[in-house]
Amino acid sequence: MNSVFTGLSAFPLTPLKDDAVDEAAFVGLVERLAAAGADSVTALGSTGSYAYLAPEERARVARLAVEHAGGTPVFIGVGALRTSQVLAHVESAEAAGAAGVLLAPMTYQPLTEDDVFELFRAVTEHTELPVIVYDNPGTTRFTFSTELYARIARLPGVASIKIPGVPADPTKAREHVAAIRATVPEHVTIGVSGDASAATGLSAGCDAWYSVIGGTLPGPAITITRAALDGRPDDATAESERLAPLWDLFAEFGGSLRVVAAIAEHLGLASTRCLPLPIQGLTDAQRTRVAGIVDRLGLG
Amino acid sequence: MNSVFTGLSAFPLTPLKDDAVDEAAFVGLVERLAAAGADSVTALGSTGSYAYLAPEERARVARLAVEHAGGTPVFIGVGALRTSQVLAHVESAEAAGAAGVLLAPMTYQPLTEDDVFELFRAVTEHTELPVIVYDNPGTTRFTFSTELYARIARLPGVASIKIPGVPADPTKAREHVAAIRATVPEHVTIGVSGDASAATGLSAGCDAWYSVIGGTLPGPAITITRAALDGRPDDATAESERLAPLWDLFAEFGGSLRVVAAIAEHLGLASTRCLPLPIQGLTDAQRTRVAGIVDRLGLG
Repeated sequence: MNSVFTGLSAFPLTPLKDDAVDEAAFVGLVERLAAAGADSVTALGSTGSYAYLAPEERARVARLAVEHAGGTPVFIGVGALRTSQVLAHVESAEAAGAAGVLLAPMTYQPLTEDDVFELFRAVTEHTELPVIVYDNPGTTRFTFSTELYARIARLPGVASIKIPGVPADPTKAREHVAAIRATVPEHVTIGVSGDASAATGLSAGCDAWYSVIGGTLPGPAITITRAALDGRPDDATAESERLAPLWDLFAEFGGSLRVVAAIAEHLGLASTRCLPLPIQGLTDAQRTRVAGIVDRLGLG
Repeated sequence: MNSVFTGLSAFPLTPLKDDAVDEAAFVGLVERLAAAGADSVTALGSTGSYAYLAPEERARVARLAVEHAGGTPVFIGVGALRTSQVLAHVESAEAAGAAGVLLAPMTYQPLTEDDVFELFRAVTEHTELPVIVYDNPGTTRFTFSTELYARIARLPGVASIKIPGVPADPTKAREHVAAIRATVPEHVTIGVSGDASAATGLSAGCDAWYSVIGGTLPGPAITITRAALDGRPDDATAESERLAPLWDLFAEFGGSLRVVAAIAEHLGLASTRCLPLPIQGLTDAQRTRVAGIVDRLGLG
Protein backbone atom coordinates (compact mmCIF):
# COMPACT_ATOMS: atom_id res chain seq x y z
CA MET A 1 0.00 0.00 0.00
CA ASN A 2 1.23 3.45 -0.89
CA SER A 3 0.97 5.33 2.39
CA VAL A 4 0.93 8.74 0.69
CA PHE A 5 -2.57 7.85 -0.45
CA THR A 6 -3.99 7.22 3.02
CA GLY A 7 -5.56 9.37 5.71
CA LEU A 8 -7.20 12.71 5.09
CA SER A 9 -6.82 14.28 1.66
CA ALA A 10 -8.29 17.77 1.88
CA PHE A 11 -9.87 19.32 -1.22
CA PRO A 12 -9.64 23.13 -1.18
CA LEU A 13 -11.89 25.37 -3.22
CA THR A 14 -10.28 27.41 -5.98
CA PRO A 15 -12.03 30.68 -5.11
CA LEU A 16 -12.63 33.15 -7.89
CA LYS A 17 -12.89 36.93 -7.65
CA ASP A 18 -14.09 38.92 -10.67
CA ASP A 19 -13.89 35.73 -12.76
CA ALA A 20 -10.15 35.25 -12.05
CA VAL A 21 -8.50 32.86 -9.60
CA ASP A 22 -8.25 34.58 -6.22
CA GLU A 23 -4.69 33.53 -5.60
CA ALA A 24 -4.44 35.02 -2.12
CA ALA A 25 -7.55 33.18 -0.99
CA PHE A 26 -6.39 29.92 -2.54
CA VAL A 27 -2.97 30.17 -0.92
CA GLY A 28 -4.65 30.89 2.39
CA LEU A 29 -6.74 27.75 2.11
CA VAL A 30 -3.74 25.58 1.24
CA GLU A 31 -1.66 26.96 4.10
CA ARG A 32 -4.57 26.38 6.46
CA LEU A 33 -4.77 22.72 5.43
CA ALA A 34 -1.04 22.13 5.79
CA ALA A 35 -1.00 23.84 9.20
CA ALA A 36 -3.92 21.73 10.39
CA GLY A 37 -2.08 18.53 9.55
CA ALA A 38 -3.97 17.14 6.58
CA ASP A 39 -2.17 14.10 5.22
CA SER A 40 -2.41 15.47 1.70
CA VAL A 41 -3.97 18.30 -0.26
CA THR A 42 -5.84 17.61 -3.49
CA ALA A 43 -6.03 20.81 -5.48
CA LEU A 44 -8.26 21.13 -8.51
CA GLY A 45 -10.69 18.44 -7.48
CA SER A 46 -14.36 18.93 -8.21
CA THR A 47 -14.43 21.20 -5.15
CA GLY A 48 -11.52 23.08 -6.72
CA SER A 49 -13.55 23.74 -9.90
CA TYR A 50 -10.97 22.17 -12.17
CA ALA A 51 -13.51 21.64 -14.93
CA TYR A 52 -14.19 25.37 -15.18
CA LEU A 53 -10.62 26.65 -15.39
CA ALA A 54 -8.41 27.30 -18.41
CA PRO A 55 -5.18 25.31 -18.79
CA GLU A 56 -2.99 28.22 -17.75
CA GLU A 57 -5.14 28.86 -14.68
CA ARG A 58 -4.83 25.21 -13.71
CA ALA A 59 -1.06 25.20 -14.17
CA ARG A 60 -0.78 28.28 -11.96
CA VAL A 61 -3.03 26.81 -9.25
CA ALA A 62 -0.99 23.59 -9.26
CA ARG A 63 2.22 25.54 -8.70
CA LEU A 64 0.70 27.64 -5.93
CA ALA A 65 -0.60 24.55 -4.18
CA VAL A 66 2.79 22.83 -4.08
CA GLU A 67 4.61 26.01 -3.13
CA HIS A 68 2.35 26.70 -0.16
CA ALA A 69 1.66 23.19 1.14
CA GLY A 70 4.87 23.20 3.15
CA GLY A 71 5.90 19.68 2.32
CA THR A 72 2.43 18.16 2.59
CA PRO A 73 1.95 15.99 -0.53
CA VAL A 74 -0.18 17.65 -3.17
CA PHE A 75 -2.33 15.81 -5.67
CA ILE A 76 -3.64 17.65 -8.73
CA GLY A 77 -6.87 17.05 -10.62
CA VAL A 78 -6.09 16.57 -14.30
CA GLY A 79 -9.48 15.67 -15.76
CA ALA A 80 -10.68 17.16 -19.05
CA LEU A 81 -13.01 16.13 -21.82
CA ARG A 82 -10.27 15.32 -24.34
CA THR A 83 -7.39 12.94 -23.74
CA SER A 84 -4.78 15.30 -25.13
CA GLN A 85 -5.98 18.00 -22.75
CA VAL A 86 -5.66 15.57 -19.83
CA LEU A 87 -2.08 14.79 -20.82
CA ALA A 88 -1.26 18.51 -20.92
CA HIS A 89 -2.67 18.93 -17.41
CA VAL A 90 -0.57 15.96 -16.27
CA GLU A 91 2.52 17.71 -17.57
CA SER A 92 1.57 20.86 -15.66
CA ALA A 93 1.15 18.80 -12.49
CA GLU A 94 4.57 17.22 -12.99
CA ALA A 95 6.15 20.62 -13.55
CA ALA A 96 4.52 21.90 -10.36
CA GLY A 97 5.98 19.10 -8.29
CA ALA A 98 2.79 17.21 -7.55
CA ALA A 99 2.94 13.91 -5.68
CA GLY A 100 0.12 12.42 -7.74
CA VAL A 101 -2.71 13.19 -10.10
CA LEU A 102 -6.45 12.70 -9.71
CA LEU A 103 -8.33 11.74 -12.87
CA ALA A 104 -12.09 11.73 -13.35
CA PRO A 105 -13.52 10.61 -16.68
CA MET A 106 -15.31 13.83 -17.57
CA THR A 107 -18.06 13.31 -20.10
CA TYR A 108 -20.06 15.29 -22.59
CA GLN A 109 -20.85 12.41 -24.89
CA PRO A 110 -21.38 9.38 -22.64
CA LEU A 111 -18.28 7.17 -22.55
CA THR A 112 -17.97 3.40 -22.76
CA GLU A 113 -15.94 1.33 -20.30
CA ASP A 114 -13.33 0.81 -23.01
CA ASP A 115 -13.11 4.56 -23.63
CA VAL A 116 -12.44 5.15 -19.93
CA PHE A 117 -9.95 2.29 -19.63
CA GLU A 118 -7.95 3.59 -22.58
CA LEU A 119 -7.97 7.10 -21.08
CA PHE A 120 -6.40 5.78 -17.89
CA ARG A 121 -3.95 3.71 -19.90
CA ALA A 122 -2.89 6.77 -21.89
CA VAL A 123 -2.29 8.74 -18.70
CA THR A 124 -0.39 6.00 -16.87
CA GLU A 125 1.81 5.51 -19.93
CA HIS A 126 2.45 9.25 -20.11
CA THR A 127 3.62 9.91 -16.55
CA GLU A 128 5.59 8.46 -13.67
CA LEU A 129 3.26 10.17 -11.21
CA PRO A 130 0.88 7.94 -9.27
CA VAL A 131 -2.73 8.20 -10.45
CA ILE A 132 -5.87 8.35 -8.32
CA VAL A 133 -8.95 6.99 -10.10
CA TYR A 134 -11.71 9.49 -9.45
CA ASP A 135 -15.20 7.95 -9.47
CA ASN A 136 -17.66 10.81 -9.11
CA PRO A 137 -20.85 9.93 -11.01
CA GLY A 138 -22.64 13.01 -9.67
CA THR A 139 -20.46 15.23 -11.83
CA THR A 140 -19.10 12.95 -14.55
CA ARG A 141 -22.27 10.87 -15.04
CA PHE A 142 -19.98 7.93 -15.64
CA THR A 143 -20.51 4.93 -13.37
CA PHE A 144 -17.61 2.56 -12.82
CA SER A 145 -18.34 -1.12 -12.48
CA THR A 146 -16.26 -3.11 -10.00
CA GLU A 147 -14.83 -4.93 -13.02
CA LEU A 148 -13.63 -1.64 -14.48
CA TYR A 149 -12.04 -0.67 -11.14
CA ALA A 150 -10.15 -3.94 -11.32
CA ARG A 151 -9.00 -3.47 -14.93
CA ILE A 152 -7.81 0.07 -14.30
CA ALA A 153 -6.25 -0.70 -10.91
CA ARG A 154 -3.94 -3.21 -12.56
CA LEU A 155 -2.42 -0.51 -14.75
CA PRO A 156 1.08 0.35 -13.52
CA GLY A 157 0.99 3.69 -11.74
CA VAL A 158 -2.53 3.52 -10.37
CA ALA A 159 -2.20 4.23 -6.64
CA SER A 160 -5.70 4.77 -5.30
CA ILE A 161 -9.39 4.74 -6.11
CA LYS A 162 -11.67 7.48 -4.88
CA ILE A 163 -15.07 5.85 -4.50
CA PRO A 164 -18.44 7.54 -3.92
CA GLY A 165 -20.17 7.31 -0.56
CA VAL A 166 -20.64 3.88 1.02
CA PRO A 167 -23.89 2.40 2.42
CA ALA A 168 -24.91 3.89 5.77
CA ASP A 169 -25.23 0.48 7.41
CA PRO A 170 -21.78 -0.49 8.82
CA THR A 171 -22.08 -4.15 7.81
CA LYS A 172 -23.15 -3.31 4.27
CA ALA A 173 -20.41 -0.68 4.10
CA ARG A 174 -17.81 -3.25 5.13
CA GLU A 175 -19.09 -5.72 2.49
CA HIS A 176 -19.05 -2.98 -0.16
CA VAL A 177 -15.46 -1.96 0.58
CA ALA A 178 -14.36 -5.60 0.86
CA ALA A 179 -15.83 -6.35 -2.57
CA ILE A 180 -13.77 -3.58 -4.13
CA ARG A 181 -10.72 -4.49 -2.06
CA ALA A 182 -10.90 -8.07 -3.33
CA THR A 183 -10.65 -6.98 -6.95
CA VAL A 184 -7.82 -4.46 -6.83
CA PRO A 185 -4.11 -5.02 -6.13
CA GLU A 186 -2.95 -4.72 -2.51
CA HIS A 187 -0.87 -1.57 -3.15
CA VAL A 188 -3.90 0.38 -4.43
CA THR A 189 -5.61 2.30 -1.63
CA ILE A 190 -9.35 2.88 -1.47
CA GLY A 191 -10.52 6.31 -0.45
CA VAL A 192 -14.08 7.24 0.39
CA SER A 193 -15.75 10.44 -0.69
CA GLY A 194 -19.21 11.70 0.12
CA ASP A 195 -18.40 13.43 3.39
CA ALA A 196 -21.51 12.23 5.21
CA SER A 197 -20.37 8.63 4.85
CA ALA A 198 -16.67 9.16 5.53
CA ALA A 199 -16.68 7.96 9.13
CA THR A 200 -18.56 4.83 8.08
CA GLY A 201 -16.31 4.30 5.08
CA LEU A 202 -13.05 4.66 7.02
CA SER A 203 -14.30 2.33 9.72
CA ALA A 204 -15.40 -0.11 7.01
CA GLY A 205 -11.90 -0.49 5.63
CA CYS A 206 -11.24 2.52 3.43
CA ASP A 207 -7.67 3.76 3.66
CA ALA A 208 -8.32 7.39 2.88
CA TRP A 209 -10.96 10.08 2.88
CA TYR A 210 -11.02 12.38 -0.13
CA SER A 211 -12.78 15.16 1.67
CA VAL A 212 -14.71 18.23 0.59
CA ILE A 213 -15.32 19.57 4.08
CA GLY A 214 -11.70 18.87 5.00
CA GLY A 215 -10.64 21.43 2.42
CA THR A 216 -12.38 24.24 4.29
CA LEU A 217 -12.81 22.89 7.84
CA PRO A 218 -9.83 20.56 8.29
CA GLY A 219 -10.10 20.28 12.08
CA PRO A 220 -13.21 18.10 12.37
CA ALA A 221 -12.18 16.11 9.28
CA ILE A 222 -8.87 15.25 10.92
CA THR A 223 -10.71 14.27 14.12
CA ILE A 224 -12.92 11.86 12.17
CA THR A 225 -10.04 10.42 10.16
CA ARG A 226 -7.72 9.84 13.13
CA ALA A 227 -10.47 8.25 15.22
CA ALA A 228 -11.56 5.88 12.48
CA LEU A 229 -8.07 4.83 11.39
CA ASP A 230 -6.89 4.45 15.03
CA GLY A 231 -9.67 1.96 15.69
CA ARG A 232 -12.04 4.26 17.56
CA PRO A 233 -15.08 4.04 15.26
CA ASP A 234 -17.47 5.36 17.89
CA ASP A 235 -15.45 8.54 18.22
CA ALA A 236 -15.43 8.94 14.44
CA THR A 237 -19.17 8.42 14.29
CA ALA A 238 -19.77 10.87 17.12
CA GLU A 239 -17.86 13.66 15.39
CA SER A 240 -19.58 12.89 12.07
CA GLU A 241 -22.97 12.99 13.81
CA ARG A 242 -22.09 16.33 15.36
CA LEU A 243 -21.64 17.61 11.79
CA ALA A 244 -24.93 16.08 10.60
CA PRO A 245 -26.54 19.51 10.10
CA LEU A 246 -23.87 20.18 7.48
CA TRP A 247 -24.45 16.85 5.75
CA ASP A 248 -28.18 17.67 5.72
CA LEU A 249 -27.45 20.96 3.97
CA PHE A 250 -25.31 19.15 1.38
CA ALA A 251 -28.31 16.95 0.60
CA GLU A 252 -30.84 19.76 0.67
CA PHE A 253 -28.82 22.22 -1.45
CA GLY A 254 -27.89 19.84 -4.25
CA GLY A 255 -24.39 18.83 -3.19
CA SER A 256 -21.45 19.98 -1.16
CA LEU A 257 -19.87 22.59 -3.40
CA ARG A 258 -22.29 25.46 -2.93
CA VAL A 259 -22.37 24.84 0.83
CA VAL A 260 -18.59 24.77 1.37
CA ALA A 261 -18.25 27.88 -0.78
CA ALA A 262 -20.78 29.60 1.47
CA ILE A 263 -18.86 28.41 4.54
CA ALA A 264 -15.57 29.74 3.17
CA GLU A 265 -17.23 33.04 2.33
CA HIS A 266 -18.82 33.25 5.80
CA LEU A 267 -15.46 32.64 7.46
CA GLY A 268 -13.68 35.21 5.31
CA LEU A 269 -11.61 32.57 3.55
CA ALA A 270 -12.99 33.58 0.14
CA SER A 271 -14.74 36.59 -1.34
CA THR A 272 -18.48 36.47 -1.79
CA ARG A 273 -19.66 34.69 -4.95
CA CYS A 274 -16.42 32.76 -5.26
CA LEU A 275 -17.76 30.02 -7.56
CA PRO A 276 -17.43 30.17 -11.35
CA LEU A 277 -20.54 31.47 -13.12
CA PRO A 278 -23.02 30.17 -14.19
CA ILE A 279 -22.96 28.58 -10.71
CA GLN A 280 -24.50 31.34 -8.66
CA GLY A 281 -24.16 29.60 -5.33
CA LEU A 282 -26.64 29.72 -2.51
CA THR A 283 -29.30 32.35 -2.06
CA ASP A 284 -29.01 34.84 0.77
CA ALA A 285 -31.57 32.91 2.80
CA GLN A 286 -29.67 29.67 2.29
CA ARG A 287 -26.39 31.36 3.26
CA THR A 288 -27.93 32.59 6.47
CA ARG A 289 -28.82 29.02 7.38
CA VAL A 290 -25.32 27.79 6.58
CA ALA A 291 -23.73 30.54 8.66
CA GLY A 292 -26.03 29.81 11.57
CA ILE A 293 -25.02 26.16 11.61
CA VAL A 294 -21.31 26.92 11.29
CA ASP A 295 -21.52 29.34 14.20
CA ARG A 296 -23.68 27.07 16.34
CA LEU A 297 -21.28 24.14 15.87
CA GLY A 298 -18.32 26.36 16.66
CA LEU A 299 -16.66 25.67 13.34
CA GLY A 300 -15.53 29.23 12.67
CA MET B 1 -41.28 34.05 -36.71
CA ASN B 2 -37.66 34.35 -37.77
CA SER B 3 -37.51 32.36 -40.99
CA VAL B 4 -33.77 31.86 -40.78
CA PHE B 5 -34.50 29.47 -37.94
CA THR B 6 -36.81 27.17 -39.91
CA GLY B 7 -36.35 24.16 -42.14
CA LEU B 8 -33.31 21.90 -42.08
CA SER B 9 -30.34 22.96 -40.01
CA ALA B 10 -27.56 20.49 -40.75
CA PHE B 11 -24.97 19.71 -38.05
CA PRO B 12 -21.62 18.70 -39.54
CA LEU B 13 -19.01 16.76 -37.63
CA THR B 14 -15.74 18.51 -36.84
CA PRO B 15 -13.50 15.63 -37.91
CA LEU B 16 -10.12 15.31 -36.24
CA LYS B 17 -6.94 13.83 -37.64
CA ASP B 18 -3.97 13.20 -35.33
CA ASP B 19 -5.80 15.13 -32.60
CA ALA B 20 -6.07 18.31 -34.69
CA VAL B 21 -9.06 19.66 -36.60
CA ASP B 22 -9.06 18.14 -40.09
CA GLU B 23 -9.80 21.38 -41.84
CA ALA B 24 -10.03 19.90 -45.33
CA ALA B 25 -12.56 17.33 -44.20
CA PHE B 26 -14.58 19.94 -42.30
CA VAL B 27 -14.65 22.31 -45.26
CA GLY B 28 -15.73 19.41 -47.47
CA LEU B 29 -18.67 18.66 -45.17
CA VAL B 30 -19.78 22.30 -45.06
CA GLU B 31 -19.59 22.68 -48.83
CA ARG B 32 -21.56 19.45 -49.23
CA LEU B 33 -24.34 20.79 -47.01
CA ALA B 34 -24.55 24.12 -48.79
CA ALA B 35 -24.58 22.42 -52.20
CA ALA B 36 -27.36 20.07 -51.08
CA GLY B 37 -29.58 23.00 -50.12
CA ALA B 38 -29.67 22.82 -46.34
CA ASP B 39 -31.50 25.83 -44.96
CA SER B 40 -28.73 26.46 -42.48
CA VAL B 41 -25.55 24.89 -41.16
CA THR B 42 -24.93 24.60 -37.42
CA ALA B 43 -21.22 24.14 -36.84
CA LEU B 44 -19.87 23.16 -33.45
CA GLY B 45 -23.03 21.49 -32.26
CA SER B 46 -22.75 18.35 -30.15
CA THR B 47 -22.14 16.51 -33.42
CA GLY B 48 -19.39 19.04 -34.12
CA SER B 49 -17.63 18.14 -30.85
CA TYR B 50 -17.63 21.74 -29.61
CA ALA B 51 -17.19 20.64 -26.01
CA TYR B 52 -13.87 18.97 -26.81
CA LEU B 53 -12.19 21.79 -28.72
CA ALA B 54 -9.96 24.59 -27.49
CA PRO B 55 -11.12 28.20 -27.93
CA GLU B 56 -8.71 28.85 -30.80
CA GLU B 57 -9.84 25.67 -32.57
CA ARG B 58 -13.45 26.73 -32.20
CA ALA B 59 -12.77 30.22 -33.53
CA ARG B 60 -11.02 28.73 -36.57
CA VAL B 61 -13.84 26.25 -37.24
CA ALA B 62 -16.40 29.05 -37.03
CA ARG B 63 -14.52 31.08 -39.61
CA LEU B 64 -14.12 28.10 -41.94
CA ALA B 65 -17.83 27.30 -41.69
CA VAL B 66 -18.94 30.79 -42.70
CA GLU B 67 -16.32 31.07 -45.43
CA HIS B 68 -17.36 27.80 -47.07
CA ALA B 69 -21.14 27.82 -46.58
CA GLY B 70 -21.62 29.94 -49.72
CA GLY B 71 -24.22 32.23 -48.23
CA THR B 72 -26.13 29.56 -46.34
CA PRO B 73 -26.69 30.93 -42.82
CA VAL B 74 -24.29 29.47 -40.27
CA PHE B 75 -25.06 29.03 -36.59
CA ILE B 76 -22.22 28.39 -34.15
CA GLY B 77 -22.33 26.41 -30.92
CA VAL B 78 -20.98 28.54 -28.10
CA GLY B 79 -21.54 26.36 -25.04
CA ALA B 80 -18.89 26.00 -22.35
CA LEU B 81 -18.84 25.25 -18.65
CA ARG B 82 -18.04 28.81 -17.54
CA THR B 83 -20.05 31.87 -18.50
CA SER B 84 -16.98 33.93 -19.39
CA GLN B 85 -15.85 31.18 -21.75
CA VAL B 86 -19.28 31.18 -23.42
CA LEU B 87 -19.05 34.93 -23.97
CA ALA B 88 -15.62 34.53 -25.57
CA HIS B 89 -17.04 31.92 -27.95
CA VAL B 90 -19.89 34.29 -28.79
CA GLU B 91 -17.34 36.93 -29.75
CA SER B 92 -15.57 34.42 -32.00
CA ALA B 93 -18.88 33.59 -33.66
CA GLU B 94 -19.58 37.27 -34.24
CA ALA B 95 -16.13 37.79 -35.71
CA ALA B 96 -16.67 34.83 -38.02
CA GLY B 97 -19.89 36.25 -39.40
CA ALA B 98 -22.31 33.76 -37.88
CA ALA B 99 -26.05 34.26 -38.32
CA GLY B 100 -26.79 32.99 -34.82
CA VAL B 101 -25.42 31.09 -31.87
CA LEU B 102 -26.52 27.82 -30.32
CA LEU B 103 -26.18 27.59 -26.55
CA ALA B 104 -26.45 24.44 -24.45
CA PRO B 105 -26.11 24.70 -20.67
CA MET B 106 -23.11 22.43 -20.27
CA THR B 107 -22.77 21.07 -16.77
CA TYR B 108 -20.16 19.56 -14.51
CA GLN B 109 -21.75 20.60 -11.26
CA PRO B 110 -25.51 20.29 -11.80
CA LEU B 111 -27.10 23.67 -12.50
CA THR B 112 -30.28 25.21 -11.14
CA GLU B 113 -32.95 26.76 -13.34
CA ASP B 114 -31.85 30.18 -12.12
CA ASP B 115 -28.23 29.43 -13.03
CA VAL B 116 -29.31 28.52 -16.57
CA PHE B 117 -31.64 31.49 -16.94
CA GLU B 118 -28.88 33.90 -15.89
CA LEU B 119 -26.48 32.25 -18.34
CA PHE B 120 -28.89 32.92 -21.20
CA ARG B 121 -29.48 36.44 -19.93
CA ALA B 122 -25.73 37.12 -19.87
CA VAL B 123 -25.39 35.89 -23.45
CA THR B 124 -28.37 37.77 -24.85
CA GLU B 125 -27.13 40.96 -23.17
CA HIS B 126 -23.66 40.41 -24.64
CA THR B 127 -24.53 39.97 -28.32
CA GLU B 128 -26.87 41.16 -31.04
CA LEU B 129 -26.79 37.69 -32.61
CA PRO B 130 -29.95 35.59 -32.33
CA VAL B 131 -29.66 32.76 -29.81
CA ILE B 132 -30.90 29.19 -30.18
CA VAL B 133 -31.70 27.54 -26.85
CA TYR B 134 -30.15 24.09 -27.01
CA ASP B 135 -31.95 21.51 -24.88
CA ASN B 136 -29.91 18.31 -25.05
CA PRO B 137 -30.25 16.46 -21.75
CA GLY B 138 -28.36 13.43 -23.11
CA THR B 139 -25.15 15.42 -23.12
CA THR B 140 -25.75 18.30 -20.70
CA ARG B 141 -27.76 16.33 -18.13
CA PHE B 142 -29.79 19.48 -17.65
CA THR B 143 -33.53 19.14 -18.20
CA PHE B 144 -35.49 22.25 -19.13
CA SER B 145 -38.99 22.65 -17.77
CA THR B 146 -41.60 24.21 -20.04
CA GLU B 147 -41.64 27.11 -17.58
CA LEU B 148 -37.92 27.66 -18.10
CA TYR B 149 -38.38 27.56 -21.89
CA ALA B 150 -40.94 30.31 -21.44
CA ARG B 151 -38.73 32.46 -19.17
CA ILE B 152 -35.73 32.19 -21.48
CA ALA B 153 -37.75 32.59 -24.70
CA ARG B 154 -38.92 36.00 -23.49
CA LEU B 155 -35.33 37.29 -23.36
CA PRO B 156 -34.68 39.65 -26.26
CA GLY B 157 -32.54 37.90 -28.85
CA VAL B 158 -33.80 34.37 -28.33
CA ALA B 159 -34.81 33.11 -31.78
CA SER B 160 -35.41 29.40 -31.47
CA ILE B 161 -35.56 26.44 -29.12
CA LYS B 162 -34.00 23.13 -30.05
CA ILE B 163 -36.04 20.51 -28.25
CA PRO B 164 -35.26 16.80 -27.78
CA GLY B 165 -37.23 14.15 -29.64
CA VAL B 166 -41.04 14.25 -29.52
CA PRO B 167 -43.39 11.36 -28.66
CA ALA B 168 -43.74 8.81 -31.46
CA ASP B 169 -47.53 9.00 -31.46
CA PRO B 170 -48.59 11.84 -33.82
CA THR B 171 -51.38 13.08 -31.57
CA LYS B 172 -49.18 13.13 -28.50
CA ALA B 173 -46.41 14.78 -30.51
CA ARG B 174 -48.81 17.53 -31.62
CA GLU B 175 -49.95 18.10 -28.03
CA HIS B 176 -46.33 18.23 -26.85
CA VAL B 177 -45.30 20.80 -29.45
CA ALA B 178 -48.49 22.80 -28.89
CA ALA B 179 -47.79 22.96 -25.15
CA ILE B 180 -44.36 24.47 -25.79
CA ARG B 181 -45.72 26.70 -28.57
CA ALA B 182 -48.30 28.11 -26.16
CA THR B 183 -45.66 29.29 -23.71
CA VAL B 184 -43.12 30.96 -25.99
CA PRO B 185 -43.45 34.16 -28.04
CA GLU B 186 -44.67 33.81 -31.62
CA HIS B 187 -41.35 34.87 -33.16
CA VAL B 188 -39.43 32.04 -31.43
CA THR B 189 -39.22 28.94 -33.63
CA ILE B 190 -39.29 25.41 -32.28
CA GLY B 191 -36.87 22.93 -33.77
CA VAL B 192 -36.91 19.21 -33.18
CA SER B 193 -33.82 17.11 -32.67
CA GLY B 194 -33.53 13.39 -32.20
CA ASP B 195 -33.38 12.40 -35.86
CA ALA B 196 -35.69 9.39 -35.49
CA SER B 197 -38.55 11.63 -34.45
CA ALA B 198 -37.89 14.48 -36.87
CA ALA B 199 -40.60 13.59 -39.39
CA THR B 200 -43.13 13.28 -36.57
CA GLY B 201 -41.93 16.50 -34.95
CA LEU B 202 -42.06 18.56 -38.13
CA SER B 203 -45.52 17.24 -38.96
CA ALA B 204 -46.58 18.00 -35.38
CA GLY B 205 -45.83 21.69 -35.70
CA CYS B 206 -42.08 22.10 -35.27
CA ASP B 207 -40.64 24.80 -37.53
CA ALA B 208 -37.17 23.35 -37.88
CA TRP B 209 -35.13 20.19 -37.63
CA TYR B 210 -31.75 20.48 -35.97
CA SER B 211 -30.34 17.41 -37.62
CA VAL B 212 -27.39 15.15 -36.94
CA ILE B 213 -27.87 12.94 -39.99
CA GLY B 214 -28.45 16.02 -42.14
CA GLY B 215 -24.87 17.09 -41.42
CA THR B 216 -23.48 14.02 -43.15
CA LEU B 217 -26.33 12.79 -45.39
CA PRO B 218 -28.20 15.99 -46.28
CA GLY B 219 -30.21 14.48 -49.15
CA PRO B 220 -32.67 12.33 -47.21
CA ALA B 221 -32.88 14.95 -44.45
CA ILE B 222 -33.97 17.55 -46.99
CA THR B 223 -36.52 15.11 -48.42
CA ILE B 224 -38.05 14.60 -44.97
CA THR B 225 -38.02 18.31 -44.13
CA ARG B 226 -39.60 19.47 -47.39
CA ALA B 227 -42.29 16.81 -47.30
CA ALA B 228 -43.28 17.58 -43.71
CA LEU B 229 -43.25 21.35 -44.05
CA ASP B 230 -45.07 21.22 -47.43
CA GLY B 231 -47.95 19.31 -45.81
CA ARG B 232 -47.07 15.84 -47.08
CA PRO B 233 -46.63 14.06 -43.75
CA ASP B 234 -46.98 10.60 -45.28
CA ASP B 235 -44.05 11.25 -47.59
CA ALA B 236 -41.98 12.50 -44.65
CA THR B 237 -42.86 9.41 -42.65
CA ALA B 238 -42.06 7.11 -45.55
CA GLU B 239 -38.57 8.54 -45.98
CA SER B 240 -37.96 8.44 -42.23
CA GLU B 241 -39.11 4.81 -42.14
CA ARG B 242 -36.75 4.00 -44.98
CA LEU B 243 -33.94 5.25 -42.72
CA ALA B 244 -35.17 3.25 -39.72
CA PRO B 245 -32.14 0.93 -39.81
CA LEU B 246 -30.01 4.00 -39.08
CA TRP B 247 -32.24 5.14 -36.24
CA ASP B 248 -31.99 1.63 -34.82
CA LEU B 249 -28.20 1.85 -34.89
CA PHE B 250 -28.35 5.23 -33.10
CA ALA B 251 -30.32 3.56 -30.33
CA GLU B 252 -28.19 0.42 -30.21
CA PHE B 253 -24.81 2.18 -30.28
CA GLY B 254 -25.51 4.73 -27.58
CA GLY B 255 -26.42 7.76 -29.66
CA SER B 256 -25.96 9.29 -33.07
CA LEU B 257 -22.42 10.66 -32.88
CA ARG B 258 -20.41 7.45 -33.18
CA VAL B 259 -22.69 6.24 -36.01
CA VAL B 260 -22.50 9.40 -38.12
CA ALA B 261 -18.73 9.49 -37.62
CA ALA B 262 -18.56 5.93 -38.94
CA ILE B 263 -20.76 6.91 -41.90
CA ALA B 264 -18.54 9.87 -42.73
CA GLU B 265 -15.46 7.68 -42.47
CA HIS B 266 -17.05 4.99 -44.64
CA LEU B 267 -17.92 7.55 -47.32
CA GLY B 268 -14.44 9.06 -47.28
CA LEU B 269 -15.71 12.35 -45.84
CA ALA B 270 -13.44 12.03 -42.79
CA SER B 271 -10.34 10.07 -41.84
CA THR B 272 -10.74 6.96 -39.73
CA ARG B 273 -11.04 7.58 -35.99
CA CYS B 274 -12.17 11.15 -36.52
CA LEU B 275 -13.70 11.65 -33.07
CA PRO B 276 -11.80 13.23 -30.17
CA LEU B 277 -10.28 10.73 -27.78
CA PRO B 278 -11.24 9.33 -25.31
CA ILE B 279 -14.23 8.65 -27.62
CA GLN B 280 -12.92 5.69 -29.59
CA GLY B 281 -15.93 5.37 -31.84
CA LEU B 282 -17.43 2.15 -33.05
CA THR B 283 -15.66 -1.19 -33.14
CA ASP B 284 -14.72 -2.70 -36.47
CA ALA B 285 -17.68 -5.08 -36.29
CA GLN B 286 -20.05 -2.21 -35.59
CA ARG B 287 -18.57 -0.19 -38.46
CA THR B 288 -19.15 -3.07 -40.83
CA ARG B 289 -22.82 -3.08 -39.91
CA VAL B 290 -23.08 0.69 -40.40
CA ALA B 291 -21.38 0.49 -43.80
CA GLY B 292 -23.68 -2.34 -44.88
CA ILE B 293 -26.77 -0.33 -44.09
CA VAL B 294 -25.46 2.82 -45.78
CA ASP B 295 -24.68 0.85 -48.90
CA ARG B 296 -27.93 -1.10 -48.89
CA LEU B 297 -29.98 2.10 -48.55
CA GLY B 298 -28.01 3.74 -51.34
CA LEU B 299 -26.89 6.60 -49.13
CA GLY B 300 -23.30 6.71 -50.37
